[in-house]
Amino acid sequence: MPDPSIIETFENPNPDRNYVITHTATEFTSLCPVTGQPDFGKFTLRYIADKTCIELRSLKLYLHSYRNEGIFYEAVTNSILTDLVASCSPRWMEIQSHWTVRGGIRTDVLVRHGDDSIVPPRL
Amino acid sequence: MPDPSIIETFENPNPDRNYVITHTATEFTSLCPVTGQPDFGKFTLRYIADKTCIELRSLKLYLHSYRNEGIFYEAVTNSILTDLVASCSPRWMEIQSHWTVRGGIRTDVLVRHGDDSIVPPRL
Amino acid sequence: MPDPSIIETFENPNPDRNYVITHTATEFTSLCPVTGQPDFGKFTLRYIADKTCIELRSLKLYLHSYRNEGIFYEAVTNSILTDLVASCSPRWMEIQSHWTVRGGIRTDVLVRHGDDSIVPPRL
Amino acid sequence: MPDPSIIETFENPNPDRNYVITHTATEFTSLCPVTGQPDFGKFTLRYIADKTCIELRSLKLYLHSYRNEGIFYEAVTNSILTDLVASCSPRWMEIQSHWTVRGGIRTDVLVRHGDDSIVPPRL
Amino acid sequence: MPDPSIIETFENPNPDRNYVITHTATEFTSLCPVTGQPDFGKFTLRYIADKTCIELRSLKLYLHSYRNEGIFYEAVTNSILTDLVASCSPRWMEIQSHWTVRGGIRTDVLVRHGDDSIVPPRL
Amino acid sequence: MPDPSIIETFENPNPDRNYVITHTATEFTSLCPVTGQPDFGKFTLRYIADKTCIELRSLKLYLHSYRNEGIFYEAVTNSILTDLVASCSPRWMEIQSHWTVRGGIRTDVLVRHGDDSIVPPRL
Amino acid sequence: MPDPSIIETFENPNPDRNYVITHTATEFTSLCPVTGQPDFGKFTLRYIADKTCIELRSLKLYLHSYRNEGIFYEAVTNSILTDLVASCSPRWMEIQSHWTVRGGIRTDVLVRHGDDSIVPPRL
Amino acid sequence: MPDPSIIETFENPNPDRNYVITHTATEFTSLCPVTGQPDFGKFTLRYIADKTCIELRSLKLYLHSYRNEGIFYEAVTNSILTDLVASCSPRWMEIQSHWTVRGGIRTDVLVRHGDDSIVPPRL
Amino acid sequence: MPDPSIIETFENPNPDRNYVITHTATEFTSLCPVTGQPDFGKFTLRYIADKTCIELRSLKLYLHSYRNEGIFYEAVTNSILTDLVASCSPRWMEIQSHWTVRGGIRTDVLVRHGDDSIVPPRL
Amino acid sequence: MPDPSIIETFENPNPDRNYVITHTATEFTSLCPVTGQPDFGKFTLRYIADKTCIELRSLKLYLHSYRNEGIFYEAVTNSILTDLVASCSPRWMEIQSHWTVRGGIRTDVLVRHGDDSIVPPRL
Repeated sequence: MPDPSIIETFENPNPDRNYVITHTATEFTSLCPVTGQPDFGKFTLRYIADKTCIELRSLKLYLHSYRNEGIFYEAVTNSILTDLVASCSPRWMEIQSHWTVRGGIRTDVLVRHGDDSIVPPRL
Repeated sequence: MPDPSIIETFENPNPDRNYVITHTATEFTSLCPVTGQPDFGKFTLRYIADKTCIELRSLKLYLHSYRNEGIFYEAVTNSILTDLVASCSPRWMEIQSHWTVRGGIRTDVLVRHGDDSIVPPRL
Repeated sequence: MPDPSIIETFENPNPDRNYVITHTATEFTSLCPVTGQPDFGKFTLRYIADKTCIELRSLKLYLHSYRNEGIFYEAVTNSILTDLVASCSPRWMEIQSHWTVRGGIRTDVLVRHGDDSIVPPRL
Repeated sequence: MPDPSIIETFENPNPDRNYVITHTATEFTSLCPVTGQPDFGKFTLRYIADKTCIELRSLKLYLHSYRNEGIFYEAVTNSILTDLVASCSPRWMEIQSHWTVRGGIRTDVLVRHGDDSIVPPRL
Repeated sequence: MPDPSIIETFENPNPDRNYVITHTATEFTSLCPVTGQPDFGKFTLRYIADKTCIELRSLKLYLHSYRNEGIFYEAVTNSILTDLVASCSPRWMEIQSHWTVRGGIRTDVLVRHGDDSIVPPRL
Repeated sequence: MPDPSIIETFENPNPDRNYVITHTATEFTSLCPVTGQPDFGKFTLRYIADKTCIELRSLKLYLHSYRNEGIFYEAVTNSILTDLVASCSPRWMEIQSHWTVRGGIRTDVLVRHGDDSIVPPRL
Repeated sequence: MPDPSIIETFENPNPDRNYVITHTATEFTSLCPVTGQPDFGKFTLRYIADKTCIELRSLKLYLHSYRNEGIFYEAVTNSILTDLVASCSPRWMEIQSHWTVRGGIRTDVLVRHGDDSIVPPRL
Repeated sequence: MPDPSIIETFENPNPDRNYVITHTATEFTSLCPVTGQPDFGKFTLRYIADKTCIELRSLKLYLHSYRNEGIFYEAVTNSILTDLVASCSPRWMEIQSHWTVRGGIRTDVLVRHGDDSIVPPRL
Repeated sequence: MPDPSIIETFENPNPDRNYVITHTATEFTSLCPVTGQPDFGKFTLRYIADKTCIELRSLKLYLHSYRNEGIFYEAVTNSILTDLVASCSPRWMEIQSHWTVRGGIRTDVLVRHGDDSIVPPRL
Repeated sequence: MPDPSIIETFENPNPDRNYVITHTATEFTSLCPVTGQPDFGKFTLRYIADKTCIELRSLKLYLHSYRNEGIFYEAVTNSILTDLVASCSPRWMEIQSHWTVRGGIRTDVLVRHGDDSIVPPRL
């Protein structure tokens, strides 16, 4: 099972600013819980750090730990948000997953945590 | 006639979050009710699930059931929204259809159900 | 002269919803009123129907009726909005025209009718 | 069954030139012969006419006649080449089909008829 | 009827080189000879001049003179090649026409005049 | 020096609507005031006309009059806004300039005049 | 270990033509033999069938069987060519693999089997 | 160490307008503080000048001074914002950095200074 | 008049190889010899050096020297080839010019010097 | 100075095939030998291995060793070809370098080693 304890953090170098960090992981694969066949997706993680930031290499290893898990699109996206929120207690966080075509249909899931009002607006 | 009862659902794994699920079906065809000639379109479905989520394979079969129906662009888009709302009682739902060129004109239709204020804003 | 009476309509299948219909006509030509040379443009029409919707084939014929008219970009865009509003009394309507390069300059015109607040916002 | 006799032709206006006509049909659908589920493809037809050219509207109707046929990608592409060659006896002809994703794999098929040496080379 | 005598030429400034001149005319319209409805196309003209080059403004006027002609795609492409060859006697010339979608099908026509072997090869 | 008096105007055909006119001029060049070397840019002008609209050919000539002027990016963008506001007294106007790479850095400048609240919002 | 015996074939419907079948598999993953970390790639398979064609679903399963194999880019591409040639004895076959960025470098491998002269040339 | 004192400024030509200047620097490199290997990024700087504007050549030299610094993505983005704010005391400023792929993950950082409400909104 | 003597060269570092150097100059402007209005183009220069290579900064200054010259597209492209061949006596050289739209028509010119057979072929 | 001895190789897994390996390195920087300012480029390396293949990580380190070298575009491209040929004695090799804009001009260099006739042709 994916183990959130492998996610490492480092001290936020500028905790006095609500700035946005984005990580786009284009190499994600898990298994379909029904058929056991591989699923392939892309994850975009955006967050406003509080005391700590997510360490990039440990994030990669955490995402790879889903490689042999059977799990639905909706569940894995929520699960990753829950784990990452627990690991670094961000002020705000968003996870988007984008999945390849199955049966002529592409699927995306968008989940957020925290107060949208602290996020720098589109300008 | 398309039968909405073939749409299956499964339990929403995270009902405590207003998160957005998007399904983009690029392979849709129906018939023009006037000429009987084939129409071809793409459908984008976005929703915030309440108690249940739409099962992907049954969604595919439901969309394919329009294959031999004669129906206008505006009517089929509204009809699919009505059926999907009935099937899973979402907190919010949007259907967009995008149709191929006819007589030098492309057509799109956008329909929504529910309260826009619960949708995560663009950030 | 273009004759707005050729625009036909059909009954709105879902008048209880404020949904948006978009028609993109990529094949428009009129004449420059100064030089008599051809102008070429693309029109995008978006509207929220009230009791009636615009019939697609008659829209095509109406747009083609400008083929031998000498008329400025700003005037033809406003004229088409006025005619289409008269033909179907929409709750809201927008016309955008996009013109090819003349003297190294591209021109676009955007005109609206009705209350923007009923339009589904970008989400 | 698709009936090649519905393909109509007209007299080649310039039989003294080996010129190339290309028709790209983006709206093709047939059925998978194994599962019965719909397949969606795009066809590109290129040919050098001899005495007759293919009439466009009849080509459209002929392609639509595969809508309810169960047939493999490789077979339908070869079948269409055979039928079109029979209908207009071209000096040279090529059919390419491009199919949507199935199981994470896209498929294309390329078939030719006649002597490549009469085709205008890429310049 | 289009009048090829309006095409003007000027002296080739470098007749000792077999160099290639390309003109891409994105604003072409004629009429369908069957329905009378407008057709819209793009023309690409490439040639190696001999004694004279084609004057650009007269080329534009010549192409516009098809605006109210009913003529098939294959015929108009061949006709323009014949007229332009007559006007400037090039060492080599190619006309490509690209037409907008009709009935879900795009059409292109490619016609050449002269000896391909003098054309600078792709490098 | 660029002379704003060459900008001509014509009567706004629909002063009762706050509609938006956009002109995109892709062929602009001036000189660097420090090195005297050429600068190349693209200008996008958007405005809501009051009593008069800007005439397109005179706009082209006005923009070309900067060809031999030495002037900074920030200054020329503001200067053009000031001149065009003076020429047609628009209800609202925006100028954007986009410059080619210098030293690995691209520069853009965005300047506005008038009350943003009358501009049709993005929908 | 990947087992080539799972690749199934079906009878070539047109063995009298040298036509080209292309399968593009965008969802491939194996392991780096040095670090054990996942690699992600895209495979393009093109071939001219002789007596049999490759069955699509078994191709998918065969490619997925590399999921937990540690193997270099060059080796896996050659290995797949060898296996597929053995499975269907094609007249000609080509495998291209395209891999995601590692250390700022993307890698592709192109391998062929058989006589290039029977392949339809680019026209 | 990067020396912010090399950033030069010049007088804002239009301090009475809140206009936006954007500089996009596509050629940035620093070192990873952990491995010492090169990092490559793109920086986008947007600001509303108060009394002074940033001189372009000195901005280039300042950005190049990070070439041999070992520094994290989050830290360098904040550091550059702090230095540029100090150099020209803008009314508002935003820095975005976009980094190349490491371990299958792209990273971006967005930092702002000043009051968002004075920035011209998207229209 | 443009002065080819300002073109500087430096010693070819590898005269034993027939390698190809490409310079793409996106910022070129001259004047229309008929109307006096500005023309804007892009030049692509490719060559195989013999004893000397073209120095980049002097190439830029040479191209800028056409800024106030009235000259036709065909003439300026041939003139630049002649001057550059004279300046560095290359084994092979090609000039392509690409011009912005005039009257709805884009123009390109391709001129070559030397023996095509020494150029590395497309592989 | 860059030290070619750091390039490592491994045994070619299929020396009986003339297959093509491509490495695209998007993160290259060196210094301008005249001004000392940074240059940024992309390198594409294609080769047919003989007994050995180039190890990817050592290739990355070798390319990074130019970071503080002052060297011309033409010279560095030839130098890298010479070093890589020496390191693995390929049957055929090609280096392409693509450089960012300087003074409005982009530069590319293409160098080859070995006999083009063994390279798989474009099909």
